[in-house]
Amino acid sequence: MAKAVVLLSGGLDSAVALYVAKNRGFDVIALSFDYGQRHSRELRAAREIAVKAGVTDHQMVSLNMNSWGGSSLTDKNIEVENGDLDRSDIPVTYVPARNMIFLSIAASVAEANEAQNIFIGVSQVDYSGYVDCRQEFIDAMEKAINLGTVMGAERNMPIKVHAPFVNMTKAEEIKLGMELRVDFSLTWSCYRGGEKPCGTCDSCLLRAKAFAEAGFEDPALL
Amino acid sequence: MAKAVVLLSGGLDSAVALYVAKNRGFDVIALSFDYGQRHSRELRAAREIAVKAGVTDHQMVSLNMNSWGGSSLTDKNIEVENGDLDRSDIPVTYVPARNMIFLSIAASVAEANEAQNIFIGVSQVDYSGYVDCRQEFIDAMEKAINLGTVMGAERNMPIKVHAPFVNMTKAEEIKLGMELRVDFSLTWSCYRGGEKPCGTCDSCLLRAKAFAEAGFEDPALL
Repeated sequence: MAKAVVLLSGGLDSAVALYVAKNRGFDVIALSFDYGQRHSRELRAAREIAVKAGVTDHQMVSLNMNSWGGSSLTDKNIEVENGDLDRSDIPVTYVPARNMIFLSIAASVAEANEAQNIFIGVSQVDYSGYVDCRQEFIDAMEKAINLGTVMGAERNMPIKVHAPFVNMTKAEEIKLGMELRVDFSLTWSCYRGGEKPCGTCDSCLLRAKAFAEAGFEDPALL
Repeated sequence: MAKAVVLLSGGLDSAVALYVAKNRGFDVIALSFDYGQRHSRELRAAREIAVKAGVTDHQMVSLNMNSWGGSSLTDKNIEVENGDLDRSDIPVTYVPARNMIFLSIAASVAEANEAQNIFIGVSQVDYSGYVDCRQEFIDAMEKAINLGTVMGAERNMPIKVHAPFVNMTKAEEIKLGMELRVDFSLTWSCYRGGEKPCGTCDSCLLRAKAFAEAGFEDPALL
């Protein structure tokens, strides 16, 4: 059974990515990051999603990204602002080079486990200022991964980076997730943490809009 | 004064890279990694080198690479073997995708500090099975960095990855380091740790050979 490393944040996108990987028949290694994010609520979600999906290999990586900051998600001196989906500038929740770091570590885990597949739940459609969610970035990383690992560069075991939603809207993702029986009640999107989603940050607004477009109620709010 | 992030392991190569960056007039942010390596002796070396070079911003990143292993440098169940410079296979000291992870984190630190330069002391000449020391990998990473950061992709502030020794032998590096007054007595190359270098691992053998070729005694052995 071919192995796949799936980046699992605990959010909606990565949960669907996990089910897509399982649905394609991969033996999944889930990979989550404790990177000094403002709250650990999403890590609890990641654990619950992995258990529900029957993933037995769930690796947690610790990385003190908060020590160099540059984002409201890792620097508690910067406030998470209320959302505005029409804004075109870079949100303060942007974490410098985060997906690059996550994909690099996924490549290392993939090589240590001889997995030739990595899944990441990015989309360039609902792209809100995150440059590292675009197909051309994913392609550049895949190339770097295959030049920078022995599997890719010398053993003729190239590693493929799958971004199954890169050209899908979040509403389309939700529809797909519903078909694959993702338990969205376990997923966590809110930037602010707490016991219930705040409903006002960018991430909550995007999620609410997508559920409405998909024609479903958000099970996390029931 | 333009800023540069310098990857500083505490070894010979990164020490010379630090002095090259300083010599080119950059304001240096040194970046070291506590990544679950077998010994912390090289981190002590990194701290001492940074202090000696007058670097005031030295950042330490913690990352539990030992949790997924795959290398004798991070997995204590794998022995460090004695060196053999004529061997052509991949050494067990290879750490999967290590330079990719280090460069990705350097890119994040660079972006958080608006630094447009990253220095890494790799060489493809004395290359002993490390695919992530080659120019084509460095080029691929530079491209990914500039697609995956806002500085590179949207702000027209591209980040340059400098690998000043990529086409130099270690002996040439040592000669350059001597000109730049690098204090090699502070650098640590041995894979095994301990109070004195073992003299028998790959890294000790490479270093001894390079000092001999350069025509210097190794100050770390005096």
